[in-house]
Amino acid sequence: MATLGAQKKHKVTIVGSGNWGTTMSKLVAENVKAHPDLFEEIVQMWVYEEEVPIPQSSKHYNPETANKTHKLSELVNTIHENIKYLPNITLPSNVVANPDVVDSCKNSTILIFVLPHQFIPRVCDQLADKIMPWARAICCTKGVDVGEKGIRLMSEAIGMRLNIYCGALSGANIATEIAQEKYSETTVAYDPPPMDSRAPTPKGSPASSQVDLISPSKAIPSARSARLKALPSEYPPLSHENVRKLFHRPYFHVRIVSDVAGVSLGGALKNIVALAAGFVDGLGWGDNAKAAVMRVGILEMVAFGKAFFADSVHTSTFTEESCGVADVVTSCMGGRNFRCAKMAIERGESIFEIERKELNGQKLQGTSTAYEVNSFLKTQGMEKDFPLFTAVYNILEGNVKPEQIPDLIEPKQ
Amino acid sequence: MATLGAQKKHKVTIVGSGNWGTTMSKLVAENVKAHPDLFEEIVQMWVYEEEVPIPQSSKHYNPETANKTHKLSELVNTIHENIKYLPNITLPSNVVANPDVVDSCKNSTILIFVLPHQFIPRVCDQLADKIMPWARAICCTKGVDVGEKGIRLMSEAIGMRLNIYCGALSGANIATEIAQEKYSETTVAYDPPPMDSRAPTPKGSPASSQVDLISPSKAIPSARSARLKALPSEYPPLSHENVRKLFHRPYFHVRIVSDVAGVSLGGALKNIVALAAGFVDGLGWGDNAKAAVMRVGILEMVAFGKAFFADSVHTSTFTEESCGVADVVTSCMGGRNFRCAKMAIERGESIFEIERKELNGQKLQGTSTAYEVNSFLKTQGMEKDFPLFTAVYNILEGNVKPEQIPDLIEPKQ
Repeated sequence: MATLGAQKKHKVTIVGSGNWGTTMSKLVAENVKAHPDLFEEIVQMWVYEEEVPIPQSSKHYNPETANKTHKLSELVNTIHENIKYLPNITLPSNVVANPDVVDSCKNSTILIFVLPHQFIPRVCDQLADKIMPWARAICCTKGVDVGEKGIRLMSEAIGMRLNIYCGALSGANIATEIAQEKYSETTVAYDPPPMDSRAPTPKGSPASSQVDLISPSKAIPSARSARLKALPSEYPPLSHENVRKLFHRPYFHVRIVSDVAGVSLGGALKNIVALAAGFVDGLGWGDNAKAAVMRVGILEMVAFGKAFFADSVHTSTFTEESCGVADVVTSCMGGRNFRCAKMAIERGESIFEIERKELNGQKLQGTSTAYEVNSFLKTQGMEKDFPLFTAVYNILEGNVKPEQIPDLIEPKQ
Repeated sequence: MATLGAQKKHKVTIVGSGNWGTTMSKLVAENVKAHPDLFEEIVQMWVYEEEVPIPQSSKHYNPETANKTHKLSELVNTIHENIKYLPNITLPSNVVANPDVVDSCKNSTILIFVLPHQFIPRVCDQLADKIMPWARAICCTKGVDVGEKGIRLMSEAIGMRLNIYCGALSGANIATEIAQEKYSETTVAYDPPPMDSRAPTPKGSPASSQVDLISPSKAIPSARSARLKALPSEYPPLSHENVRKLFHRPYFHVRIVSDVAGVSLGGALKNIVALAAGFVDGLGWGDNAKAAVMRVGILEMVAFGKAFFADSVHTSTFTEESCGVADVVTSCMGGRNFRCAKMAIERGESIFEIERKELNGQKLQGTSTAYEVNSFLKTQGMEKDFPLFTAVYNILEGNVKPEQIPDLIEPKQ
């Protein structure tokens, strides 16, 4: 029921301030200004505080204070630039950096998570019970947690730990290009279940317990939606139209879908496809072969979604949306997984050797996803149903050669 | 009804001997040898006769006879190489070149057309009434004829002129890569309607009259299938399984579908998408933008098929098959339309100027298809339903700038 008082607006927080998080802050801050009827003007951005020097390449560099370091959050709030993670891009002045994660989310109805994978559980545990009970989240971190027992989407991990609804955003989104306002597209999955508008604010955090689900989406209606709290009616509704207004820019086109699992899986599984494309390109097999592997990969992504999230996954999420086909294209044109796999074949070295030499301590997502997915498929007895994913795993393990890919993925008739 | 006598086998003719036709002869000749129960061993290849010298780069070059020219068909039959159109690839000895098109097709039950677009009507008129009445054709020439009045598929043009059923083959198929046995995939559309097994051999060629059809596929059951003659039962059936055996190789994977219109449209419309991808890449907009344009392009291909061939076109032909998504990928990675469009933007010249300077008299397919499709869309009052195709046309015409693509294709909400 609507209450007395002024119509409220949505307050937005970006939880994360890396390359992608800062880019997201910029475009969301532009959008909240464009829609003052829906959103509060200030966009909070949680910054993991660091002391950073101003590099010589920056226009803010001063040789007299070259050795001085600054708090990253203070730099964002004074020079309006994330000098460490998104240099040379001026942020709108309504982005306010905040080093206190709980304070940054206080009273926010929209939480946009853009954290590295491994930080999500810890940050969510800090936030549990400190956020608005009717807040909604969107997870912009790509990837899924695949274990032997099941697959957990990042959005589900966030949603369960915070006891709120969490959607997902994924697409062919190289952050730096978007920060430079070069044309891009993305897919937002947002489909909250019916919620109880009478339920009290939940106490405790039972949702943060470890639960492994083969198909977490099934859990929402039965176990969780009754506990999720509806947005009070004094806020503008978070309809697809209004969610789109939060993300859509002239240079960043948004399509909204309902398939959270498909959008999330796309961002993870495409990295396995990019490894396969890199392998065949490294063999010098040309563009036909690369396109073939990409096509087969997209169909295995569909099959994986259908096998393990049958209730919610749509084929079109993979074959028609930015988070599917377009992200595969971008990842197989020049992404890191593609490049390292190609280099491994060309140099006759293992991809792990290439990773060590070329990535300066960073890890490839494709290799860990290929191992995790294979381990899960083994427990399901379904390795043979995903011949390309299985071939990539076996190439990484040295069990088969990349030259065998056509034979391994050939449909048996 | 089955007749007395030995079980017959299918005789195969390749109508065409260019780069793609000769490649097709090679792989089909390999397959007929692998399936002697289904196919006669000799594969006829119709060669448009030319007198050719042996180039210095060839292993067959002899400086003492350097000025001597040879009949192309005789060279194929002696040195087993198409020295002009597919140099340095040895053809199987069961490929027999024949300069007489009627003789090459005599008694053949399978005719594989791999001719340049513009030669198809003339060659079909030469063959009319000279072929087996129950022959079946597969058209491997990409493209469709789009006029103001309608769209005619190449396969329909062949089928109507010869009064036989004609399917289509299309995919991410750069011929030279396939000739080198580098891994590739293709899509074969083959779905003959029910045919009359009692009908006499048709006289005359009423089917070769000019008929413009918006949706030619509709015409088959009503007007033509009753005139099509069924394959006598002493031949092995031309089932999907047996058609696949004719084309599928360990290095050339075939998927068979029923959607002739979708397969044919894919091979034509992807060239418009490749121009769009070239334009945004020429602007330096990066991989997100290129992937976005490709994705939007694939969806306009789907929409075009659905709008004008609603009865027969499947979305998945474009989004899941080699003739759709994979051909778009290959064409947007390095195809000629992509490269010329990119170069036009980078050099600030018109694409027609680039075509003139770079293509040595050859023409881009993308530009003519973009014009033909636009002219057709105008007559249908549907330009605005295909904003990317329309944008490409307007860029070619100088009416809009490539920088306007995101705005032009932005979904209005």
